[in-house]
Amino acid sequence: MSEREDSKTGGSNQMWGGRFEGGPSAIMREINASIPFDKALWRQDVAASKAHVAMLGACGIVSGEDAVAISEGLDKVAAEYEAHGVPEDWDLEDIHMTTESRLTELIGPVAGRLHTARSRNDQVATDFRLWVRDAIDQADAGLEALQVALVTRAGEHAGSIMPGFTHLQTAQPVTLGHHLMAYYEMIQRDRSRFHDARGRMNKCPLGSAALAGTGFPIDREMTTQALGFDAPTANSLDSVSDRDFALDYLMAAAQCALHLSRLAEEFIIWASQPFGFVALPDTLSTGSSIMPQKKNPDAAELVRGHAGRISGCLMSLMMTMKGLPLAYSKDMQDDKPPVFEAASLLALSIAAMTGMVADTRFRTDRMRGAAELGFATATDLADWLVREGNIPFREAHHITGAAVKLAETAGLALDKLPLADLKKIDSRIDERVFTALSVEASVAARKSHGGTAPDQVRLRVAEARSALGLE
Amino acid sequence: MSEREDSKTGGSNQMWGGRFEGGPSAIMREINASIPFDKALWRQDVAASKAHVAMLGACGIVSGEDAVAISEGLDKVAAEYEAHGVPEDWDLEDIHMTTESRLTELIGPVAGRLHTARSRNDQVATDFRLWVRDAIDQADAGLEALQVALVTRAGEHAGSIMPGFTHLQTAQPVTLGHHLMAYYEMIQRDRSRFHDARGRMNKCPLGSAALAGTGFPIDREMTTQALGFDAPTANSLDSVSDRDFALDYLMAAAQCALHLSRLAEEFIIWASQPFGFVALPDTLSTGSSIMPQKKNPDAAELVRGHAGRISGCLMSLMMTMKGLPLAYSKDMQDDKPPVFEAASLLALSIAAMTGMVADTRFRTDRMRGAAELGFATATDLADWLVREGNIPFREAHHITGAAVKLAETAGLALDKLPLADLKKIDSRIDERVFTALSVEASVAARKSHGGTAPDQVRLRVAEARSALGLE
Amino acid sequence: MSEREDSKTGGSNQMWGGRFEGGPSAIMREINASIPFDKALWRQDVAASKAHVAMLGACGIVSGEDAVAISEGLDKVAAEYEAHGVPEDWDLEDIHMTTESRLTELIGPVAGRLHTARSRNDQVATDFRLWVRDAIDQADAGLEALQVALVTRAGEHAGSIMPGFTHLQTAQPVTLGHHLMAYYEMIQRDRSRFHDARGRMNKCPLGSAALAGTGFPIDREMTTQALGFDAPTANSLDSVSDRDFALDYLMAAAQCALHLSRLAEEFIIWASQPFGFVALPDTLSTGSSIMPQKKNPDAAELVRGHAGRISGCLMSLMMTMKGLPLAYSKDMQDDKPPVFEAASLLALSIAAMTGMVADTRFRTDRMRGAAELGFATATDLADWLVREGNIPFREAHHITGAAVKLAETAGLALDKLPLADLKKIDSRIDERVFTALSVEASVAARKSHGGTAPDQVRLRVAEARSALGLE
Amino acid sequence: MSEREDSKTGGSNQMWGGRFEGGPSAIMREINASIPFDKALWRQDVAASKAHVAMLGACGIVSGEDAVAISEGLDKVAAEYEAHGVPEDWDLEDIHMTTESRLTELIGPVAGRLHTARSRNDQVATDFRLWVRDAIDQADAGLEALQVALVTRAGEHAGSIMPGFTHLQTAQPVTLGHHLMAYYEMIQRDRSRFHDARGRMNKCPLGSAALAGTGFPIDREMTTQALGFDAPTANSLDSVSDRDFALDYLMAAAQCALHLSRLAEEFIIWASQPFGFVALPDTLSTGSSIMPQKKNPDAAELVRGHAGRISGCLMSLMMTMKGLPLAYSKDMQDDKPPVFEAASLLALSIAAMTGMVADTRFRTDRMRGAAELGFATATDLADWLVREGNIPFREAHHITGAAVKLAETAGLALDKLPLADLKKIDSRIDERVFTALSVEASVAARKSHGGTAPDQVRLRVAEARSALGLE
Repeated sequence: MSEREDSKTGGSNQMWGGRFEGGPSAIMREINASIPFDKALWRQDVAASKAHVAMLGACGIVSGEDAVAISEGLDKVAAEYEAHGVPEDWDLEDIHMTTESRLTELIGPVAGRLHTARSRNDQVATDFRLWVRDAIDQADAGLEALQVALVTRAGEHAGSIMPGFTHLQTAQPVTLGHHLMAYYEMIQRDRSRFHDARGRMNKCPLGSAALAGTGFPIDREMTTQALGFDAPTANSLDSVSDRDFALDYLMAAAQCALHLSRLAEEFIIWASQPFGFVALPDTLSTGSSIMPQKKNPDAAELVRGHAGRISGCLMSLMMTMKGLPLAYSKDMQDDKPPVFEAASLLALSIAAMTGMVADTRFRTDRMRGAAELGFATATDLADWLVREGNIPFREAHHITGAAVKLAETAGLALDKLPLADLKKIDSRIDERVFTALSVEASVAARKSHGGTAPDQVRLRVAEARSALGLE
Repeated sequence: MSEREDSKTGGSNQMWGGRFEGGPSAIMREINASIPFDKALWRQDVAASKAHVAMLGACGIVSGEDAVAISEGLDKVAAEYEAHGVPEDWDLEDIHMTTESRLTELIGPVAGRLHTARSRNDQVATDFRLWVRDAIDQADAGLEALQVALVTRAGEHAGSIMPGFTHLQTAQPVTLGHHLMAYYEMIQRDRSRFHDARGRMNKCPLGSAALAGTGFPIDREMTTQALGFDAPTANSLDSVSDRDFALDYLMAAAQCALHLSRLAEEFIIWASQPFGFVALPDTLSTGSSIMPQKKNPDAAELVRGHAGRISGCLMSLMMTMKGLPLAYSKDMQDDKPPVFEAASLLALSIAAMTGMVADTRFRTDRMRGAAELGFATATDLADWLVREGNIPFREAHHITGAAVKLAETAGLALDKLPLADLKKIDSRIDERVFTALSVEASVAARKSHGGTAPDQVRLRVAEARSALGLE
Repeated sequence: MSEREDSKTGGSNQMWGGRFEGGPSAIMREINASIPFDKALWRQDVAASKAHVAMLGACGIVSGEDAVAISEGLDKVAAEYEAHGVPEDWDLEDIHMTTESRLTELIGPVAGRLHTARSRNDQVATDFRLWVRDAIDQADAGLEALQVALVTRAGEHAGSIMPGFTHLQTAQPVTLGHHLMAYYEMIQRDRSRFHDARGRMNKCPLGSAALAGTGFPIDREMTTQALGFDAPTANSLDSVSDRDFALDYLMAAAQCALHLSRLAEEFIIWASQPFGFVALPDTLSTGSSIMPQKKNPDAAELVRGHAGRISGCLMSLMMTMKGLPLAYSKDMQDDKPPVFEAASLLALSIAAMTGMVADTRFRTDRMRGAAELGFATATDLADWLVREGNIPFREAHHITGAAVKLAETAGLALDKLPLADLKKIDSRIDERVFTALSVEASVAARKSHGGTAPDQVRLRVAEARSALGLE
Repeated sequence: MSEREDSKTGGSNQMWGGRFEGGPSAIMREINASIPFDKALWRQDVAASKAHVAMLGACGIVSGEDAVAISEGLDKVAAEYEAHGVPEDWDLEDIHMTTESRLTELIGPVAGRLHTARSRNDQVATDFRLWVRDAIDQADAGLEALQVALVTRAGEHAGSIMPGFTHLQTAQPVTLGHHLMAYYEMIQRDRSRFHDARGRMNKCPLGSAALAGTGFPIDREMTTQALGFDAPTANSLDSVSDRDFALDYLMAAAQCALHLSRLAEEFIIWASQPFGFVALPDTLSTGSSIMPQKKNPDAAELVRGHAGRISGCLMSLMMTMKGLPLAYSKDMQDDKPPVFEAASLLALSIAAMTGMVADTRFRTDRMRGAAELGFATATDLADWLVREGNIPFREAHHITGAAVKLAETAGLALDKLPLADLKKIDSRIDERVFTALSVEASVAARKSHGGTAPDQVRLRVAEARSALGLE
């Protein structure tokens, strides 16, 4: 007998039956107990048990009287949880045992009929799917709110000019509304991804029992409908071994977090003194314990950091699932902490960025000023040469390069270069060129579908508002 | 001037224009060149350029004559690539420059008109989408073949009994057909995931130009249709900054690889001498350089290992994309190697597992023998007590625990225990119980929807064959 | 003013000064608060503050009287934390503010002198290093206990024969002691890795202040020594931006977890009915809620699963740190949850595997029986041919291949093949060969340094016991 | 017979012996072949084989004549590889078989004696360790060059003032030399990490044979010394199963890549037009195919992106190794591609950042100008109040907050506020305060150990130059 034997716990979990001569050791109790985190599933666990026992009653597997007693008992347990929280007794291992144990205390041995024709394996698969389905719906609602904030601010700034960057170098002038609508598109894909995940996962595993289905004459359609699923799952081994729904959720969450991290990075850069493109809302900034002048973009930084943690959650579950043989293995208990953590971090991240988008003051004067630096309309000069001079683009690109070099040396903006100097570079340039070289002309010109021209942006905003039901 | 200055390369890339007084250094040429890997995009690059120039011609942006010359020139370049491969000149950086440079050699300065109203930023976004779309289609075809193999073998073995495991412990008897059909379900979800990814990505970014759209009167619908996309993308900044389609692909690939790693793990365990459930096909095994008796499940092990690498590819791109501001950043050039690697590993993994499923000899005698060990029908005893004795499941579970303990001590199978001994444990047990305790009875009983009963398995196989168009 | 404005919190954190007209919103309070997790640092925070104030007093930066008052106040706060836990007030953000706030309540405004010449940036860097240093020491102690268990069981089983596997195929006979000692080596590397991490991180950042050092005449050597560090850090910007110590810890933890996952996998496979190599301790197994006969290797499965989660923690922090400019960014607040989670999971995993190694009953009869299957001594035949027949190894390998094929067809073990049949394959084989073909002869022969021969194993065990101070 | 059977390959690999009736299929040949990548090990493979055969000869296991013939034959093979590259024949699987096959062609059957007392399992473990050891040495040399560049530029700019950032907000003035020396410290830790990895891995696995050691009387010390290892490995099972050395390398590489990504991020931000802190070297920038004015920090972006790929390589191998039972499994063949890829990306990243540090022109005027914005000396005001007014820091922090608010409203720098206004905030302020509020005074004051004061920086630079052997 090992000295690690913990005699206090001997036989304390009566669910395991009399087979174990020694109780689980202290280590085992701690490593094995999932109740500290899976208590988060209590609503789903009670709902699934109620659906299960109603079906058992309807199918005559338990008597109608017993079914009612169990169902009412479950309501009582739920009311207790609601009022006082779920008790954490490691000997009861998980939310399923915890609930059944309390049910037994409340209604006696008839509680033992609840577990007919099911197992913890299909029970947890059902509970967790229900939880993830709710998390998807919450993410979707949060993302819709973020889209509303984006299209609202994009509508306000459809014509506000800022520098468009590639490589964080000033590239061409764009409009702030256009920039914000890029995130609208990303979030739209995120919502689509969550939607696909929801559709794929919305099948009911309840009734798959331990791994092989059951010999009791159950009606899986009935529990499927009661719990809002589209259909029962088709293979019991797969049903208890499958965590695709959790991975689908984490993958959608991770991609969404990556998008948010990009927006966060932009706010952080824009809030720096040299950029000064935004004044962040006081409500989403913090001060410093030592530097009284600081106003730090903490919320944005935390959103950026959370992208790492949410991606870590995905990696965690992928690695845990790798190489697991069928059917259920206990490794799969490690599915919940990363999903719970990711869901919490994602909800906060979405809310924080929504606030940031809604409440940030955009310093459009500074944005416009920056757009005029960096020869941002050089492409417009090249395009003008192609259009008006019928010069192949590559040659126009070279001519423009020379003009930029000249402007740089002279310390002038492109549209301030004397025409004579431009003509020395290429005689085909004439005075009409200057109409193309202002930042206003530049953005107004780019009216191809999806381009940055204010009219294009207004069109996209109108479509988005309509899709969001805002008009 | 730095000693790292590499004067040989000065000015060698004429595409950059005259702005750089010093040429790229040797380090820069190497770190910057993507041609060693992005040459894989040549078919897509030529197709997109042809669609672009046809549109430029149709819209009058280049003359019809020039458009034809460019298009025919592109055909010649493509023919050269097909015949001799794509040349790797680091000074030409990437597939786009390589192709345009050769086009210029072939048709002269008119080639310079091809790059009108586009940029490498939208060009690579288009090319890579087309490549990923093809990779999705190839994955889908491979997965369909794997499903055919699975349902074929499942149909053969709908009634073959094997031990069903949870925790790799014998749990309940199942059928081999049922086990194989669990993987059919996983692969079905994988195909659904690839299908969703394809739908989400099938928008055309061409015409977004560098980041802001273009002032040329292009027709994005025309290129969209020519390239088989569903619609043009809606925001030019997003179009050149978005790599969701690559991440969606990698996520679907990673989940698929996880499923294959589970099947591979099972084949490896089943092929071990103590299990001996399978004789692997010689074609997918290898020998040893030192142990002449060995027949190693190398293909399965490599499939299992590849799940790590494919997941690593996903992680790589997620981390690369984290926190990138809009629009295009050069970091995004690191999108292709992980996707190319994952696609190659996934295709091999799918093919290897298809061969494994199709050609493995299942040693059904050993499987059935193992199913009789480990008191696999203990649940059937508990269920019988519930059904016939109207005993709450929890109590029945305890009675069965005592019976298992007795059988273990006596060294007997459950159905070989004397009735008298069983009655001592619980007097409600009678001789009818023995009909429930054989492995055949056990599997036959589990005929709930999705259960392991041979008739259920045959039903599922028939449905699957129909879905696959096999009958 | 945004509707998300949460006026209740206005001005509630007096540490930020009067600059903020609006208080942090509810979202900000939640996303910003680290007190829910960083309260775990309270012992380190108090210790570092005491060292800091003692130094301030010694250097005359605060008066001796004030230093004593602050130090005694900190003791009181610590006593409260010890007795009642650390209160979680989100408005106080973190453990540093929480402690200083309580200190101010206890001793009045003099508490404000504690934060002289430091910042939360160097404070948290110091606290967290101290915490990680303790975690390293705890890991080392746990790993030492695991090594003791390994060498103890290896000593018992230096001569117990089992099949050695490659590719999970029977390859050559080995001894169980040899197999266990392989894990001793892995754990030794893990300890070496933790040791290296400890040495590299053991520098004191306190005194780096916000990012630039301080103008107060502090004595960094004094705090360095008081807190058990080897030296003060050399660059204040690096000191507040560096989380290498956390990554080093996570990397060592992840590699250790991978080793444990391999051992866990082996226990899981060995515990399966077809293998039956081990009877796991009841204390580290669980039963089933539905299958009364089950005895599941849950602890081993959780250890295997935890390798995924610990690796996910590493990935999380790596991704969070990627691309952060100097100096401190708030993203770095996401350093603690993954480290805390990994440390907790690792400690449990080490303890569980120690119990598993110490208390498992090895079924040496079944192991030896399995070693005789699979022609495990085929290499010994090939080696005999090289040694006694002076045949090149490659040729001997081919001859042995033919012998294995013959034995397989005949259904005989290699050492049961008639000599006449062997001679037909190669006439140089004679009756002496049979002495080489038993599993005992096979393991005894492999007495090269580090080989599986029982004498070699005993030698390694003796060395290890000596290194562990066991004799 | 499967239709996937590829009869062309039947028996083509004569190393496997006659046991396989069917040759490996086309899929198997492709998935199994490692020669496309492990040919990179050819130098190590030849060196290890030469050390092995010299030892076999010295120990009398092969004749002296044979040993010489084999050794000379290996030299010929090596010369061929050097001249013409390593041929890629998938049927020969890997570099080991490829070399032995060519050796047999060159010197006949005696080549078959080379594989005596070894296996591909210990052979590849030895080869790969040697390769990784070289990669470590190369990384160290590259990092030393980067340190030289850092200290050189830091020495030039020990007194150049720039804004120090936290949260990318101007926090306190620092010196550019101090900032660069922060990276010196990071790189020093990277070198220490590679050094530790080298020490831990430098044990020789050769002689561990397939998994169990060998019965031939080999001398492992002799091969250990010949190959520059410190000692032979202690356990043969561990020796062929261990890939810690590859993981240690990847972990050190990933942390180093993270550091480089941070420096790269800073260069990218500093090179943006609004910052304008640096003019990047033309040699490490690129132009745009469409925007002639662009000068993009491509090299820095690629370094930042490579941090993702190198971390993905680490993740890949971690996941591949998870849960592998002893001893060698074929999954471990997936160890090389990620290590090779990471080593190549890291070498380029180090070289690119070295060039960037050495050749960038720091625009110190713009840096100094930015340092004066953002009230960067507010902490100095607070510190002055503590020092001169004996005010508790927290109170001083509040007074300073009010001063900053006043300055912000007035649109003045802190040191331009009228004394009268300051006195209204707190009457203890007098005219001496202005001496503390210039950026020069601020940095000069922070002369605590490791602080940003120019004298401190020069001290650190001198120490570093001495450690690098520069003076």
